[in-house]
Amino acid sequence: MAQNMLLYWGTGSPPCWRLMIALEEKQLQGYKHKLLSFDKKEHQSPEVKALNPRAQLPTFKHGEIVVNESFAACLYLESVFKSQGTRLIPDNPAEMALVYQRMFETENLQQKMYEVAFYDWLVPEGERLESALKRNKEKLIEELKLWEGYLEKMGKGSYLAGKNFSMADVVCFPVIAYFPRLQCPKERCPRLMEYYEMVKDRPSIKASWPPEWLEKPVGEDILKSL
Amino acid sequence: MAQNMLLYWGTGSPPCWRLMIALEEKQLQGYKHKLLSFDKKEHQSPEVKALNPRAQLPTFKHGEIVVNESFAACLYLESVFKSQGTRLIPDNPAEMALVYQRMFETENLQQKMYEVAFYDWLVPEGERLESALKRNKEKLIEELKLWEGYLEKMGKGSYLAGKNFSMADVVCFPVIAYFPRLQCPKERCPRLMEYYEMVKDRPSIKASWPPEWLEKPVGEDILKSL
Repeated sequence: MAQNMLLYWGTGSPPCWRLMIALEEKQLQGYKHKLLSFDKKEHQSPEVKALNPRAQLPTFKHGEIVVNESFAACLYLESVFKSQGTRLIPDNPAEMALVYQRMFETENLQQKMYEVAFYDWLVPEGERLESALKRNKEKLIEELKLWEGYLEKMGKGSYLAGKNFSMADVVCFPVIAYFPRLQCPKERCPRLMEYYEMVKDRPSIKASWPPEWLEKPVGEDILKSL
Repeated sequence: MAQNMLLYWGTGSPPCWRLMIALEEKQLQGYKHKLLSFDKKEHQSPEVKALNPRAQLPTFKHGEIVVNESFAACLYLESVFKSQGTRLIPDNPAEMALVYQRMFETENLQQKMYEVAFYDWLVPEGERLESALKRNKEKLIEELKLWEGYLEKMGKGSYLAGKNFSMADVVCFPVIAYFPRLQCPKERCPRLMEYYEMVKDRPSIKASWPPEWLEKPVGEDILKSL
């Protein structure tokens, strides 16, 4: 069924990874894909730009339909393949509201993680300031506290938006996975790390695990001082 | 029907405004609401924090269901009141994909607009750099070019994701409205300004127009030099 799908992706990119988790959860294995190198700037190649004027990954095509923003592609797959694989957006209004809420809060966590972990990559050399990085770290710590509170309130064994694995987990897990990888102290987010341990071996996540993370299971210690 | 809804909002905030447009489009008038002042930090009041640990606006409650992220609340309303008012997410997969795509691209436009228009508010005084603001402006100009291209391709009289007003318009219009208000030169985005003129008198948008913008129709000239 997924042979008419084409994905251009980069390894370790949370936006790519979440779309790959969604494809697995919706039982859309067997799609065509091409792994591109950010370092070699392959995402800026003409073949990507032809489908994605932003020249970003993921770039995703289903038949003649192109949908590149990772959240957009995940929602599209859930809508079009609603009754196939895992139901990622529940029908029950209260459950649905929480899934959407946590799904969109993920952008806060992602942005704040990037602004610490990838500060040197985001800010040109002459403009880097200790004071800004310090503030970014404080904001990230505050953000983690929010998520810790959410998980604490939901209780042990809960997913991000309740008892069932949902779109909130699909979009957020690849962001959360950066905390242990970049050696964030476990005390900063013990509940999130419990959640990480619970979810990391889920088949959809194992099947889409970044290949470079398999080769090199421990990343740089960028978050060690958080 | 909307009497069991409660909205805390701030005037001129794109996230608040988009939720108010969605409420109008879904014929959910008559909701309870409370206008809070960002300047007086009323969004950090205990009544907001009780519903929203981020202490942000919008803060939105439907019965006992709380959903605060503006995109999340808009999608929630569309799902729960699918057959009421305007259909904002089409069933047709190709149309749906484009609506989701432009909806999520809006976050790029919003972020890049903020990083120019609200630079002094986002960056503490000692950390402001001409070079950073200049780069932010260049990024915003590039972003505007993308949207100009989209509208150019779709043709005159088109909405952001096709022939029909959709969720893409709901979430993006409040961002686009900042360009004429902050005196962005029309030549920077002539197609977007045509779109703005076409959409600004739509009933849902007029009904939710920021009250301070009615009192003071022209804002600061922050984008004049773009």
